[in-house]
Amino acid sequence: MDFDGIRGLTGAINTSLGEFFDHESTYLRKIGSELNPVADALGRFLLDSGKRLRPLFATIGYLGAGGELTPQIIRATSSLELVHVCALIHDDVMDASDTRRGAPAIHKQFEGLHDAQGLHGSSEQFGVASAILLGDLALIWAAKALHESGVPSESILHTLPVYDEMRVELMAGQYLDVHEQALASESVERSLKVARYKSGKYSIERPLHFGASLAAGSSPQVIEIYSGYGLPLGEAFQLRDDVIGVFGDPEKTGKPAGDDLREGKRTVLVAMTLSKANSAQRAEFLENFGRKDLDSGRIDSLRQIIVDTGALAELETMIEVMTFKAHDALSHGGITPEAVTYLNEMAVAATQRSS
Amino acid sequence: MDFDGIRGLTGAINTSLGEFFDHESTYLRKIGSELNPVADALGRFLLDSGKRLRPLFATIGYLGAGGELTPQIIRATSSLELVHVCALIHDDVMDASDTRRGAPAIHKQFEGLHDAQGLHGSSEQFGVASAILLGDLALIWAAKALHESGVPSESILHTLPVYDEMRVELMAGQYLDVHEQALASESVERSLKVARYKSGKYSIERPLHFGASLAAGSSPQVIEIYSGYGLPLGEAFQLRDDVIGVFGDPEKTGKPAGDDLREGKRTVLVAMTLSKANSAQRAEFLENFGRKDLDSGRIDSLRQIIVDTGALAELETMIEVMTFKAHDALSHGGITPEAVTYLNEMAVAATQRSS
Repeated sequence: MDFDGIRGLTGAINTSLGEFFDHESTYLRKIGSELNPVADALGRFLLDSGKRLRPLFATIGYLGAGGELTPQIIRATSSLELVHVCALIHDDVMDASDTRRGAPAIHKQFEGLHDAQGLHGSSEQFGVASAILLGDLALIWAAKALHESGVPSESILHTLPVYDEMRVELMAGQYLDVHEQALASESVERSLKVARYKSGKYSIERPLHFGASLAAGSSPQVIEIYSGYGLPLGEAFQLRDDVIGVFGDPEKTGKPAGDDLREGKRTVLVAMTLSKANSAQRAEFLENFGRKDLDSGRIDSLRQIIVDTGALAELETMIEVMTFKAHDALSHGGITPEAVTYLNEMAVAATQRSS
Repeated sequence: MDFDGIRGLTGAINTSLGEFFDHESTYLRKIGSELNPVADALGRFLLDSGKRLRPLFATIGYLGAGGELTPQIIRATSSLELVHVCALIHDDVMDASDTRRGAPAIHKQFEGLHDAQGLHGSSEQFGVASAILLGDLALIWAAKALHESGVPSESILHTLPVYDEMRVELMAGQYLDVHEQALASESVERSLKVARYKSGKYSIERPLHFGASLAAGSSPQVIEIYSGYGLPLGEAFQLRDDVIGVFGDPEKTGKPAGDDLREGKRTVLVAMTLSKANSAQRAEFLENFGRKDLDSGRIDSLRQIIVDTGALAELETMIEVMTFKAHDALSHGGITPEAVTYLNEMAVAATQRSS
């Protein structure tokens, strides 16, 4: 297989996900027409958008370890997108977030279906129950997509331990995040740890390892290079998320302006702001942070405090330093030049994005 | 390995689950002490009770296909209990059930932890978020336990398709159930279909197939015998659940008396009652069914209607007929005599239980 850069890889991943979905959704619909909304909602969520970050890193991880691309490998790496679909659907229930990518979150979609069809019981409860099951199903589909990818048996067996570790880390990281929010922690160190588990490992390092393990006989040196690149870049990626959550353009993010401020999300950016704020700034920030009724004037004031304390600038510096570390990890050989090119490109995309 | 009957197998399964849990929980706690409550709650849920029905059927399915028991096989079959832990934890969130096995449900435990530690935000939301993640983690642990069981590679590869199918059917069945409740359906046929997916396949047939696939080279005939036994017995098992949900002794079930009546659960028993009720019985039943404030007098009246319409008697007959079918499927040879003995014993245990 030959591809024209990241865009070509993304296209192949999308095609592969589309084929998998067609097959699995046909099976679901055959069980009963009651499952049509489940198939429809999962299809839209999976196929309408998404940057395919984790499948891309896994594919590049495979290439970097000297693997030769095949449709089977693309199927295996694409499966990581379904793990992410599970994480996002469940995340929206856990955060009670009503929108995702500019559309109603899955639990809101099924709440709406319950209302529209005049079903019995609580529509909110129906929405939550459906979203839990759709997330579970996505996680199971992910495993099925990997198992049925057609890659050689030894590649599957070699990959399962990394795959399991990635998924345990994801769920542990998610719990750390939920717990951190409940602590209303102001510790920069603690929120960096959450970022490390929630995103550093799960989004970049582990997908690279996953890809390397699909390439039979990848060396420990390759794994090390991927950690050297993936961990700092994953943190930088999460810090960029923090910035977008506060300063992002709703047109691009699909979320309301200043959404993280209204939700009172305890991010590294917020911890940094509070650690640098003087007492007046601190009082004003805490009075408004997390208020559901924040208007655009108040959002601007909170943003101003984040800028004035120097927290935004420091975060941007951290992103730069960590991105530099990531690039640097690639500059000492050990993986294929093609993968180095791709990974340098991905590092820019992951940290300079606006959504 | 040599065991003294079902009790011996259950003991071996419990030991295996305990060892797996010790290993995995140690890893979790190392990530951070914030995860201690996660490990503690999962440990209690997994190890304090449970009949190990699915691991037992899988183990017997393996024996019936001519397999020789090893500690590795017990590890692999035990992993199904963790799939079930996921299903139960998520089920309690979806039903908003506050108790499980006489103890607070997981979401209530974490709601309590939030209250006790005076954490920020909604304790209810924290409870739900934690339960979603603990269920996800249990599902991932299940896969990890299977992958790391140490059974031969070809057994793992042979088993994954059955495993995936079982899990997809479980989640599809759960959605059918949630949807059926929301329809407030009175169709006996529809509720039997839900029972078939939710329990018939997931609880008995698929675990048997799972076990057979662990035994290298099991014949299609064995798979067929297991379906002939597992499908009717699974339905009988679910119908027994319906009866216990209405008539069960709280001391034995760990749930309040008449819990399904208070929750307004649409079961085959309820559909049967409504299909047989005269207009006075129907009116009285529907007036009280699903009321959260049902007192013991009203519960008794509802029970009386279920008895008077003949619905209970018909359900008991159905259980008998289906259990007979299950026994009959074993009587034509094709699986080992040891497994026949075990499966006949399990059929009695699954349908004559009181909790």
